[in-house]
Amino acid sequence: MSGFFITIEGVEGSGKSTQIKLLAAYLQEKGHTVTLTREPGGTPLAERIRDLLLDCREESVAPLTELFLYEAARAQHVNAVILPALSRGEIVLCDRYVDSTTAYQGAGRQVKEGTIVSLNRLAAGDAWPDHTFILDMPADKGLQRARARGSDDRMMTETLEFHQRIREEFLALANREPERITIVDAGGSLETIQQDLRDQIDRIPKFNDTLK
Amino acid sequence: MSGFFITIEGVEGSGKSTQIKLLAAYLQEKGHTVTLTREPGGTPLAERIRDLLLDCREESVAPLTELFLYEAARAQHVNAVILPALSRGEIVLCDRYVDSTTAYQGAGRQVKEGTIVSLNRLAAGDAWPDHTFILDMPADKGLQRARARGSDDRMMTETLEFHQRIREEFLALANREPERITIVDAGGSLETIQQDLRDQIDRIPKFNDTLK
Repeated sequence: MSGFFITIEGVEGSGKSTQIKLLAAYLQEKGHTVTLTREPGGTPLAERIRDLLLDCREESVAPLTELFLYEAARAQHVNAVILPALSRGEIVLCDRYVDSTTAYQGAGRQVKEGTIVSLNRLAAGDAWPDHTFILDMPADKGLQRARARGSDDRMMTETLEFHQRIREEFLALANREPERITIVDAGGSLETIQQDLRDQIDRIPKFNDTLK
Repeated sequence: MSGFFITIEGVEGSGKSTQIKLLAAYLQEKGHTVTLTREPGGTPLAERIRDLLLDCREESVAPLTELFLYEAARAQHVNAVILPALSRGEIVLCDRYVDSTTAYQGAGRQVKEGTIVSLNRLAAGDAWPDHTFILDMPADKGLQRARARGSDDRMMTETLEFHQRIREEFLALANREPERITIVDAGGSLETIQQDLRDQIDRIPKFNDTLK
């Protein structure tokens, strides 16, 4: 694998989707080929799974069902998009990935950690993130922002306490894997956060080695 | 669990869906409450996953994606339909279940056996079949019958050799688990096969014990 795989994670309303687009533009301006993608999604089938996951209102979704659906979308995305892009030497930027599964289906839905770890490894295969940014902000502030922009997916119907567990899990993950995961304060202005991300990327030794 | 869980398996065109309906009628006539269901499916969400699985033509589906989707549908079905029915003391009759996953995604798609076993166990949880009937016939004959009735799901586009591996795996499973799995010759008339199934059911000691 000659490429570099960066994932961006965070609670609802933390600004991931905006920041990742600006980051893609920055890296492209520097001359890199960037594949910008998201989970769940990234292929037609995975986007159809995304629709099931975020819109299902007809019945309560069992935690394991939800986990299997995310991993199904991931396996498809990895095989059809992420691994091919990495093997072409591209930078892959992905909006949510395995750490969201640990946070949402593990800390949020309380599926056993061992189950999450093994299914994440199985679906991701050789596509493990080289670096991960967590856009951190208090869960209540993020939810307010997400509601203000009209987001109404299935996760938005969960309690504040659910979203707080997710934030705590992201922070715990960063604590356990400080080499791979960087916390970025998502409370500032759009420009400040983007500058912070760019500075962090420019400082990752492995990233810069890869690009030489 | 006071109920009894029977699954029916077999290659394409083996007549499962017809036979399982007749079997449900037989058991209902004997005074039992029967939940007749199928996989993938059995709940609105699981039926939507079934549509993805059997109709996806827009891209090639990765073997692991397919496996995760079947297990997602199963986890939902088990939680919403099978376990509640068993705990009400009903007989659950299910058209395809974990052995189809072993045959199609294991022998067919060549996903590792250990992966299939652990995901089947995870999704099925406490809903393991008490008894399984495999309607056996040569794969080519079954495919002919399935095509004659207009079946055109995604599995029908696979090679004869793929379907032969599936038949062989069903036979191997029955060989490994003779207590749970009974092979029924699906080559005879509809009536002969149904009579065979009824005779077999009437002879299962555990089944009869459960119903006392």
